[in-house]
Amino acid sequence: MDIAAAKAALSHLEVDENPVSLKAKSRDFFWYSPVLKERLDHLVADFAVAPRSEAEVIEVLKTCYKHDVPVTTRGAGTGNYGQAMPLAGGCVMHMRNMAEVLEVAPGRVVVQPGCLLKDLDAACKAQSGQEIRMFSSTWATATIGGFIAGGSGGVGSCTWGALRDLGNIIRLRVVTMEEEPRVLEFRGEELPRVSHAYGTNGIITEIEMPLAPAYDWVEMFVGFDDFMQAVEFAEGVANEDGILIKLASVYEAPVAHDYFQRVKPHVEPGTHLVGLMVAPHSMDGFQTFLGRRPDARLIYRSDDNDWKKGPGPVFEYGWNHTTLRALRVDPSITYLQVRYHYPRHKELIAEMRDKLSPEVLQHLEAMRENGKTIFAGLSLVKFTSEERLDEIVKMHEDAGAMIFNPHRYTLEEGGRQTVDDRQLRFKREADPKGLLNPGKMIAWDDPDWAFERMYAYPKMKAAE
Amino acid sequence: MDIAAAKAALSHLEVDENPVSLKAKSRDFFWYSPVLKERLDHLVADFAVAPRSEAEVIEVLKTCYKHDVPVTTRGAGTGNYGQAMPLAGGCVMHMRNMAEVLEVAPGRVVVQPGCLLKDLDAACKAQSGQEIRMFSSTWATATIGGFIAGGSGGVGSCTWGALRDLGNIIRLRVVTMEEEPRVLEFRGEELPRVSHAYGTNGIITEIEMPLAPAYDWVEMFVGFDDFMQAVEFAEGVANEDGILIKLASVYEAPVAHDYFQRVKPHVEPGTHLVGLMVAPHSMDGFQTFLGRRPDARLIYRSDDNDWKKGPGPVFEYGWNHTTLRALRVDPSITYLQVRYHYPRHKELIAEMRDKLSPEVLQHLEAMRENGKTIFAGLSLVKFTSEERLDEIVKMHEDAGAMIFNPHRYTLEEGGRQTVDDRQLRFKREADPKGLLNPGKMIAWDDPDWAFERMYAYPKMKAAE
Repeated sequence: MDIAAAKAALSHLEVDENPVSLKAKSRDFFWYSPVLKERLDHLVADFAVAPRSEAEVIEVLKTCYKHDVPVTTRGAGTGNYGQAMPLAGGCVMHMRNMAEVLEVAPGRVVVQPGCLLKDLDAACKAQSGQEIRMFSSTWATATIGGFIAGGSGGVGSCTWGALRDLGNIIRLRVVTMEEEPRVLEFRGEELPRVSHAYGTNGIITEIEMPLAPAYDWVEMFVGFDDFMQAVEFAEGVANEDGILIKLASVYEAPVAHDYFQRVKPHVEPGTHLVGLMVAPHSMDGFQTFLGRRPDARLIYRSDDNDWKKGPGPVFEYGWNHTTLRALRVDPSITYLQVRYHYPRHKELIAEMRDKLSPEVLQHLEAMRENGKTIFAGLSLVKFTSEERLDEIVKMHEDAGAMIFNPHRYTLEEGGRQTVDDRQLRFKREADPKGLLNPGKMIAWDDPDWAFERMYAYPKMKAAE
Repeated sequence: MDIAAAKAALSHLEVDENPVSLKAKSRDFFWYSPVLKERLDHLVADFAVAPRSEAEVIEVLKTCYKHDVPVTTRGAGTGNYGQAMPLAGGCVMHMRNMAEVLEVAPGRVVVQPGCLLKDLDAACKAQSGQEIRMFSSTWATATIGGFIAGGSGGVGSCTWGALRDLGNIIRLRVVTMEEEPRVLEFRGEELPRVSHAYGTNGIITEIEMPLAPAYDWVEMFVGFDDFMQAVEFAEGVANEDGILIKLASVYEAPVAHDYFQRVKPHVEPGTHLVGLMVAPHSMDGFQTFLGRRPDARLIYRSDDNDWKKGPGPVFEYGWNHTTLRALRVDPSITYLQVRYHYPRHKELIAEMRDKLSPEVLQHLEAMRENGKTIFAGLSLVKFTSEERLDEIVKMHEDAGAMIFNPHRYTLEEGGRQTVDDRQLRFKREADPKGLLNPGKMIAWDDPDWAFERMYAYPKMKAAE
């Protein structure tokens, strides 16, 4: 690894080696996890570079290839699995200078990876009254490239399913890290090679995504005294095929009261909360749905309320913003990512709550999976020890709930705990030296790994 | 009933009493059913009137009320349950002169009832790139008012569910038939009073409907050798949350070969066919889905094919156009409307096919119900006798499949075979003399009717 030579060769690009800003540019949101915080907190890249074009991306990859310098690519670094942490140091490549919206057409957009989700939506709305189908709760700060390379779904998944579902990404343009980098275009069956691959096997330089109509979503909070009634409400509204929604979140009490500061004056400690985004032309249908459930209390709607301090966007209470809000109040809180599959979803939720509340508080997000409404869980966990956390994970898995463990930094452990052959095979082609985001794909480093304990990347950069 | 006095009082309106055109204006598509044909074929109104405004609608209703003249209101008369047949004669009120699109906004449109579905879509698309969520296969000739008063769903229901589902109608403006007709606005829980009520308890003069984005849908036919594979394919694509579709129809062999003339050269007698409409930006996802099913043969796509004679719109093979095409080739064919509910839908379909094919050939339409993909059946039935038809109906009901019997002209028998109290109560208010589309609501005429045999309206106009 010849850092100096690589830096020198790239010095005409936007390179940063200032220790303070470099440290900031080397970090993502791994610190939601005390497990990752302990292991990754010291990491810092040797330099950062922010290419302004695909040609510059190619130059960075070619140069770093030549000098055996690892390259960890990132958007805004809002991921929570340590996706963008440079385990072996080297170069961190920031995509923020490649943020152009290239083409907007009915039902689709072509965009560069560094474009903020917020800016992408603004451009699509201004040009065509459209918006992206789904986004992470970090919409205001995250990039579309980071969302695709490191995310799985979010606000909008209650209607459109997950990013990995057919049709939710149309095309990705990818640069390989070889002596002579190649530029490839992926569609269809080729997309999973690089989507949700943390940039371990190619760098996305252009993205084509489907669009949906942009509406002035009505954002709401609905309160309940009974938790399962809140769950049934969120599921019910997500199952109303004629009511168009973009979000249906459920927060077990006392999450709303204890962690949602602006909401607190309007709820009791025992209030279970549902957060919603409903299309304005579906509000009549929603009001009818609501009227049939006398136990549901509409406590806030964004287009008509008398709150002195508005709560801001309701989606910034959902998905992983829930964890962030809880963490700010109680730093000992962390979380789990759970999938409660159909048809046992509600049964499993009730079972986990019975066994674990209040140590684990339920936070659920309605989403579609194979045409059914199910729930993604981003449960809030009062952290005591790694052993106890592993025990909680095991309780979920034993019951039949799937865990995407956010206390692991490898693709396999944070994903389905199996090797993705498509990603591995493509890494062999596209990153023969294994320099792209090293340490994140166990299958590359240790093909016989048995997943019996947490993987520890042996070449991780030591603390200085 | 003083016909002459009513006609005289309305003579300044567009009144038609020419026997030839009046006969045509008094008929709908009841003749798909040999049972209804035998009973309704002779019916003709005493005169027809086509009001040009809500004020004229009020005048017609007030005048006919005064002279005890029945009023049967209709759009284009494309319904198949005899919805618009004037059982007691009197006045047939045509809405074709009230066809204005009044307002188009993001997600919604306000329109008069006589607007053709085709014209409504054209206006919405031209003004805003939008279209209605769902339409009957008679899109080119049917009206929006007729669809709401006499229809239940159609092309688009695979995504949005049925018309009766919350959110699929926003508002209806309705005129009552009293000494002094009232004008009422219905939303939410009030909508089912008059939607799918055949105009028995109020006349719709204005409609507010939700809209969806208009796309240049790619229309396709996919062939299969195995029937259940075709069913699984249609269900599977409807369950792909990221693939936006507007139609997924299944036709058991030899329907495509024997009844779809333009399709015949491209299929075998044994080909089971799936008809599809897919959004253009979902075609990559669809091609991936298709590629995973090597037994599925894409034989036609509207945007790329070498057929010498194009088949026309693929939706004109689906819903009740299937029956129409079969009838044209074999006049002894009629049909049934079946609902195969989740989760037994496929099991029931297989069971009915095992027991009844080829006397009954499966024609299925994927639709959403309570958030699940299910199938509506519009099975083709080789008619032999009314007794046998009733037997086939009973076999479905005994197995657990719901029948909306299209061989009955009353709301109850063609619907859920129970009295709709909301409709009955509103008829008491809005039509105290029982003059609106008489004979169609058993609950009004014979509250103690036990549904043991086909209802026969005692005041039906005799053949001359």
